[in-house]
Amino acid sequence: MLSHGSGGSMMHNLIKDLFFNYFNNPLLNLANDSAIFPSFKGLTAFTTDSFVVDPIFFPGGDIGKLAVCGTINDLVAVGAQPYCLSAGFIIEEGFPLNDLETIVSSMATEAAKAGIFIVTGDTKVVEKGKCDKLFINTSGIGVLPGDKTRQPNPESIGAGDQIIITGCIGDHGMAVMAARNHLEGTINIQSDCAPLNLLLHGITENPGGIKCMRDPTRGGVASSLCELVKDKEFGITIHEDRIPVKPAVKGFCDMLGFDPLYVANEGKMLIFANKEKSEDIVARLKSHPLGREACCIGEVNRENHGKVVMKTAIGGTRVVGMLSGDQLPRIC
Amino acid sequence: MLSHGSGGSMMHNLIKDLFFNYFNNPLLNLANDSAIFPSFKGLTAFTTDSFVVDPIFFPGGDIGKLAVCGTINDLVAVGAQPYCLSAGFIIEEGFPLNDLETIVSSMATEAAKAGIFIVTGDTKVVEKGKCDKLFINTSGIGVLPGDKTRQPNPESIGAGDQIIITGCIGDHGMAVMAARNHLEGTINIQSDCAPLNLLLHGITENPGGIKCMRDPTRGGVASSLCELVKDKEFGITIHEDRIPVKPAVKGFCDMLGFDPLYVANEGKMLIFANKEKSEDIVARLKSHPLGREACCIGEVNRENHGKVVMKTAIGGTRVVGMLSGDQLPRIC
Repeated sequence: MLSHGSGGSMMHNLIKDLFFNYFNNPLLNLANDSAIFPSFKGLTAFTTDSFVVDPIFFPGGDIGKLAVCGTINDLVAVGAQPYCLSAGFIIEEGFPLNDLETIVSSMATEAAKAGIFIVTGDTKVVEKGKCDKLFINTSGIGVLPGDKTRQPNPESIGAGDQIIITGCIGDHGMAVMAARNHLEGTINIQSDCAPLNLLLHGITENPGGIKCMRDPTRGGVASSLCELVKDKEFGITIHEDRIPVKPAVKGFCDMLGFDPLYVANEGKMLIFANKEKSEDIVARLKSHPLGREACCIGEVNRENHGKVVMKTAIGGTRVVGMLSGDQLPRIC
Repeated sequence: MLSHGSGGSMMHNLIKDLFFNYFNNPLLNLANDSAIFPSFKGLTAFTTDSFVVDPIFFPGGDIGKLAVCGTINDLVAVGAQPYCLSAGFIIEEGFPLNDLETIVSSMATEAAKAGIFIVTGDTKVVEKGKCDKLFINTSGIGVLPGDKTRQPNPESIGAGDQIIITGCIGDHGMAVMAARNHLEGTINIQSDCAPLNLLLHGITENPGGIKCMRDPTRGGVASSLCELVKDKEFGITIHEDRIPVKPAVKGFCDMLGFDPLYVANEGKMLIFANKEKSEDIVARLKSHPLGREACCIGEVNRENHGKVVMKTAIGGTRVVGMLSGDQLPRIC
């Protein structure tokens, strides 16, 4: 009901019964206007993401799980260890409380899995028809070592660096598309949505050699690579036959006319690594359940400045551009 | 267009041309997945708020100004000095780019006025009819002195403490109601929306004596006081004839059947202060343009445990309850 967002007693009861119950932790429970915690040594990383995925439930996750993982992964991408999240809910009047509870519960589960707290939040309710069920914003704070040499830095990318993907691409986008088309029973694709601090914890320091990481969500691997190479004095070559794509994802992409290179991922990281360390990194990634399909898909070179070029499976080459239109709206 | 939120080139151009242009600062321009900055000494405060105000333009402000001030004030309320904000936009397909620019510009103006940076952001676009024009989430980080004795602490509230309001109440809520009813030309009420670090900077430390602060937004002064007194061993008495309400606000409230005590403020703070320091605090507040009408509206006492009681202007008393229904949806 609208009054659940009014600042009065119904809102306070909702917060107490639902959010405090699931997100139970000492920082949140102070119920102050802001959460307060000791500052870290080193550097602070700060990021935000709003989630408007449609539908809100899809194979392998829901908007709550996605909201927690997505923001964690934005922190992990800059080399930070996630510390805490905020959660802001915009709810459509009439949205079922039990669906909200399922989603809040899945946020709590994912946060616990990733070892972080949801420490502050906000709830707004808008009239029926003024938003689509539920939108969630999560912002996140993470800790970075003060030592600059241990931080990923895109400026350090250079010719010879290897480009690693931590697993199969396109799963999240195609799982959401399957659910949107009511094909989730027919097509067996699960979103890869996962908190990547679990996979990358430790690997960023040991064996070292990580120059840059990117979380290839909206726009997919292609757009992330294009963004990194833009106006740079180097080029990127990727090899089509090395890019891991599950057969079901490939097939569904072909059916709908999508290129998996442009489809969103929510549990994958692109890693630019020093050539000498790249095999070690891939081996360590493969030893973790979230990194089984990790592999090197390409390299940085001195040719084709500012461009991403793909060597195709049949031996040709083509330039990979940034996503220009709008392939998959509301995928996250 | 939907493609402005797709992760492709249209989104990157929008971010570069609009957000980077207005929010120009060294942290944001790194265009990383997260902003990175040195950690502070002391404590960190962290808060979040989503803004769904309807209409998005109203006398005295717009959704952008509100989003910046609201989150700043949540940090100020816990005694923190605001440091930086994130901004997450959910935009309805077809929303005019020039309106977006006006709003982004007003966020930049307000942030500059308050002396803080917007360091990280996110943009989502949803189909026409799937949100109402524009929703903005801002999350904020602030710095608190490590010294516990200098932090406001609701647990320290006790009998004799004075309750100060920094100015007239109900302006924001009634300005939005005027705009919603297309009466902004007829009724002269401006939102009080303002960043309160400007007013409170320094006062929290000198003269000292501030025990607790609350930002009486949704639910108004009444709901904030009721929340603070709930299940406590003390009561609160407020005096109707001392509560500052502008005649236009009072008149419009009477017209619509609202009680200004329950109407949202966006540039006012409720301060619980040590009795000995309260006159000094009021005097210092009054010396600032944002605190001209500051005054003491009541006190904490040992009677009526857990209740807020109002001495009415005609000499009676009544219990002030928390807002129970839904007086003004989408006021912030």
